[in-house]
Amino acid sequence: MSDCQPVDLKAEEMEKVMINKLIAKIKETNAPVVVGLDPTLSMIPEFILEKSFDEYGETLEGAAEAIWLFNKEIVDKTFDLIPAVKPQIAMYEQFGVPGMIAFKKTIDYCKEKDLVVIGDIKRGDIGTSSGAYAIGHIGKIKVGSQEHAPFNEDFITVNPYLGSDGIDPFIEVCKEENKGLFILVKTSNPSSGEFQDQLIGEKPLYELVGEKVALWGSECMGDEYSNIGAVVGATYPDIGKTLRKIMPKNYILVPGYGAQGGKGKDLVHFFNKDGLGAIVNSSRGIIAAYKDEKYAKYDQKNFSDASRAAVIDMIEDIRKALEGRGGS
Amino acid sequence: MSDCQPVDLKAEEMEKVMINKLIAKIKETNAPVVVGLDPTLSMIPEFILEKSFDEYGETLEGAAEAIWLFNKEIVDKTFDLIPAVKPQIAMYEQFGVPGMIAFKKTIDYCKEKDLVVIGDIKRGDIGTSSGAYAIGHIGKIKVGSQEHAPFNEDFITVNPYLGSDGIDPFIEVCKEENKGLFILVKTSNPSSGEFQDQLIGEKPLYELVGEKVALWGSECMGDEYSNIGAVVGATYPDIGKTLRKIMPKNYILVPGYGAQGGKGKDLVHFFNKDGLGAIVNSSRGIIAAYKDEKYAKYDQKNFSDASRAAVIDMIEDIRKALEGRGGS
Repeated sequence: MSDCQPVDLKAEEMEKVMINKLIAKIKETNAPVVVGLDPTLSMIPEFILEKSFDEYGETLEGAAEAIWLFNKEIVDKTFDLIPAVKPQIAMYEQFGVPGMIAFKKTIDYCKEKDLVVIGDIKRGDIGTSSGAYAIGHIGKIKVGSQEHAPFNEDFITVNPYLGSDGIDPFIEVCKEENKGLFILVKTSNPSSGEFQDQLIGEKPLYELVGEKVALWGSECMGDEYSNIGAVVGATYPDIGKTLRKIMPKNYILVPGYGAQGGKGKDLVHFFNKDGLGAIVNSSRGIIAAYKDEKYAKYDQKNFSDASRAAVIDMIEDIRKALEGRGGS
Repeated sequence: MSDCQPVDLKAEEMEKVMINKLIAKIKETNAPVVVGLDPTLSMIPEFILEKSFDEYGETLEGAAEAIWLFNKEIVDKTFDLIPAVKPQIAMYEQFGVPGMIAFKKTIDYCKEKDLVVIGDIKRGDIGTSSGAYAIGHIGKIKVGSQEHAPFNEDFITVNPYLGSDGIDPFIEVCKEENKGLFILVKTSNPSSGEFQDQLIGEKPLYELVGEKVALWGSECMGDEYSNIGAVVGATYPDIGKTLRKIMPKNYILVPGYGAQGGKGKDLVHFFNKDGLGAIVNSSRGIIAAYKDEKYAKYDQKNFSDASRAAVIDMIEDIRKALEGRGGS
């Protein structure tokens, strides 16, 4: 028995590596997709708003309660189909402290459902401050003799503009906790090229950042992929192709599918030949699906059934695209 | 009487423009300095920790209470000397929701003392998400028929890596609320050059961002300066000189003084000939002054007196440097 122990321990340890867990769940669901939990009040059905405002008034607390109830129902109806969710913290932070409470409740609930939680927080600072963000979101903080995991996401997105000093403290915490990052490389918005596409010598800035991601990632390897990934927008498929080669071992989180215009066929280049290497996010297209003509048969009361249907369609769209290229 | 009204109204309106208020307070105190409220538990005197842990235990709530008590005493002892404070949100966020409550309490208390509050939040995202950050920190959010100002800072710092799409929603809220931004241009950390100094044609990226700040700023003018400013680290005085010329109407928030190595004499180039145009931040050097040999005569109990002494010394250092160049 004792001879086997080191091996068993290692296997167990590797399962705790967050990128391994994410990949296992992607394989299990056969769905390289993330549902973006980015609610706005205008997306939330009237009956939920009424219930929340009746209880808490038209206050920040009332808004936060509505968001939480909305999220919970969507998670209940989709968690068995998907490996991960990505709450966008801005949509919670806009409701101040009560919004942050709803953010935390959403994370905790998704983790109860065994979903991988990617906190879309796009933080970035230097030294102590980057360290503090890392501790607050994916690490643990010591208070006296006690340790606490404040927000406790599994992955977070971070901004690289401040350079290695800004990223290193995040990587340190990733190593301690076996958790991960998605570093912004090329974002999905129309003006992302203003700075990111500028040529440094012969290379655009996003390639330089991509090379750094590959380097940073080499320090935090799971089985086949690194705990350190990148964000590259679905709206730039050619750039995705280039960056895929520059960062072969780094997972790419791909926003911009659906509402922002990206389609399944645009996404194939973000994946490696093994059918892995990318995870595609859709937010509005899923959580506000009941407002879309395509899902008009669902009304406000069944909004989360519309979300489930939209998840199934999205998974199918991406599967077909991947099969179409003869890879996967 | 009625003939004069339009003029009076205009004067009153201009006072509500946040950069005008900041400049008026800088002139009144003759102190172009900001105290960075970036507390860590290791800075907080034992007697405050004990009191907080006795009441709330060694919990996130206990830590947040300690931070709040520490801040309050420093603000009480320094508010008459300074125009503004800059709480670094990372240091609060690391304590989760209770930390965010302490952040909000600190903002509210500083505003009661009529200090200008610069939220050092370094947020940056695209479209709706940038808009949500802007609303949450310097704007108002509508919940049903009610409006709320969630965190309610006066200025915030933002990250420009995502381009104009990321900045525009912040600028929109600045226009509505007459509040302001400090956009990261050249940060004070050693590796800031990794991306920010890369040459785009013949210009480093930070110059390109500086030019954008000047452009964005021209849409949000106060009397002489814009509500849109820039962050340029004290540790790069030559770059400060260049950027001062590129952004003549934009206030520069200068971190890196004191603990990070910047000295008064390094700062003169960040100022315009009118003696205005820059505001210098010190965090640890002020709030943890009682731990510094120079202020050894103060013990833990009088930690905030050490902070007051350090503020007075810092103001003197900068005044002398500005007089020395024959400007101001």
